[in-house]
Amino acid sequence: MARSAIPEPVTAVTDLAGAWLPLRLEQVERRLAEIAAGHGEPIAADAGSTLAAGGKRMRPLLVLLCAGREAGEEAIRAATAIELVHMATLVHDDVLDDAPMRRGRPTVVANAGRARALATGDLLYSRAFAELAAPGSEAQVAALATASVALARGELAQRQDAYHADVSAERYYLRCRLKTAALFECACVVGAERPEPEREALAAFGREIGLAFQLLDDVLDVIGPPERTGKARGADLLDGTVNLPLIRARDRDRGLSSLDLRGLDERAAEQVCDRIAATGATQTVRAEARERVERAKSGLREAELTAGDRHLFELVADGVVERYS
Amino acid sequence: MARSAIPEPVTAVTDLAGAWLPLRLEQVERRLAEIAAGHGEPIAADAGSTLAAGGKRMRPLLVLLCAGREAGEEAIRAATAIELVHMATLVHDDVLDDAPMRRGRPTVVANAGRARALATGDLLYSRAFAELAAPGSEAQVAALATASVALARGELAQRQDAYHADVSAERYYLRCRLKTAALFECACVVGAERPEPEREALAAFGREIGLAFQLLDDVLDVIGPPERTGKARGADLLDGTVNLPLIRARDRDRGLSSLDLRGLDERAAEQVCDRIAATGATQTVRAEARERVERAKSGLREAELTAGDRHLFELVADGVVERYS
Repeated sequence: MARSAIPEPVTAVTDLAGAWLPLRLEQVERRLAEIAAGHGEPIAADAGSTLAAGGKRMRPLLVLLCAGREAGEEAIRAATAIELVHMATLVHDDVLDDAPMRRGRPTVVANAGRARALATGDLLYSRAFAELAAPGSEAQVAALATASVALARGELAQRQDAYHADVSAERYYLRCRLKTAALFECACVVGAERPEPEREALAAFGREIGLAFQLLDDVLDVIGPPERTGKARGADLLDGTVNLPLIRARDRDRGLSSLDLRGLDERAAEQVCDRIAATGATQTVRAEARERVERAKSGLREAELTAGDRHLFELVADGVVERYS
Repeated sequence: MARSAIPEPVTAVTDLAGAWLPLRLEQVERRLAEIAAGHGEPIAADAGSTLAAGGKRMRPLLVLLCAGREAGEEAIRAATAIELVHMATLVHDDVLDDAPMRRGRPTVVANAGRARALATGDLLYSRAFAELAAPGSEAQVAALATASVALARGELAQRQDAYHADVSAERYYLRCRLKTAALFECACVVGAERPEPEREALAAFGREIGLAFQLLDDVLDVIGPPERTGKARGADLLDGTVNLPLIRARDRDRGLSSLDLRGLDERAAEQVCDRIAATGATQTVRAEARERVERAKSGLREAELTAGDRHLFELVADGVVERYS
């Protein structure tokens, strides 16, 4: 997979933040590696490959950033736990999709079969909560459990909606809140306790950039290019997932409403992508994502951040809509 | 499925315990029903059918019994959480086995497909930890997370060993500790905090009856009868699972060592069951289970129970080896 020329949000932020942030991200990375290795073979191999394929570490970054430079051990634990839940959902998603590759590497299900992949996902879930089992951690457990329930509900909603070409934008956003935004929101509040108005401001920040993140994922699914995103165009369509570009395009190209998603092969999916792009729907959705990012940024006023810290948050938010994978 | 004439352990114990125990089991039942119904359709239907098919509520019973009659709300929460984890593993197991029925009802995977069943299992896992997110609950979270990790490791070990007819008894017991005994052990310590020697005595009780429980499951898989167990004989063999009766039988009927489990159909599996039974291995394993139960009972001396309470524990332990499903 080709590296994007645009800097990853993580890199841009850690370059600016000073030593504390990269140091903590490294601690999280080390903890994740320990956990992956801590259950003997073959778990180490499966969990390790998931870990390596994990990507941008957006969620741990958010945990650490929102917890702040004064945060202690509990922020590391929270960042680790949230990435473990994220990894668990990736492993289970790949089981459902029988996905051969993720981020240029074979998936656990491809390497080890459905049974091992399913159990590996369960193990990662359980390890996430094990990570939070420390005195005074009940708020963290509550936040992560709530987010995990939302993830599962989002997955259920998406599978329920699969191949229904007439799914509404409202329903899409509900799904998106559950499946993507809930864990981003959790990441922003789980690393340190804060007074209520500040906590809510950070939660809203997480929610908005989570939605923006998903919207951009949808756009990239339609326009690619594959050599930058690392996956074929139209994967959502082949999966039966009606994403927002398709929903917005339906209003402009009525023929798309009566599309039979079940009949598509890879070639046909790419053609539908071209047709969606031709309506201008991807620009519309990208604009919606940017709006979300702006809303996320302006909401930070309530969070009582220093100008320097606020700039870091803004960089993360901008990074979400300026990426290719 | 026919009801067994032998009293279920739960019934026998609740009849003797006095009102507090049935009352609390009912509270757990109500809480489980609330949770199943609390996420809208179609989750309610899937989780509800799992709940209804859940069976004996052995694990919540153990939680409540070990927590004692003075225990508070935290015992109800723990009993609910542990049953949710148990339900989650059943739903995921059925996905892997593509099982059509469990306890005479269609499974979630049969009703709703793999995708919904997998997400339902994840939801139940997450809800379990949500249940424990209360002040001072870190020991409970730790215990349940540890047990859940063990369950997943046990599942992984079992799948790794599948179709290996030469699996050793030691390896079998390791798997069994992870896949069955760990959650029983957790049930015995998660409902209330106790001083260390007492806690360890209850943990050992749970471990031993958990192992005995699994051994009897194995025996019932070989001898049935299906009209009492509610499932066909030889299901383990068809699944590639080398259980203890087969391991013990191998030593007496050498031909069983070279058995090719991959080649079996239902009829052939039943014939292998007959051959295992003919060696007397099922009596051997039943005797091993009874030994475990005796060890569990004699270990209770360390737990400082009243004579009345100790009798309840003994009834539960005996019930484990005197059941048909």
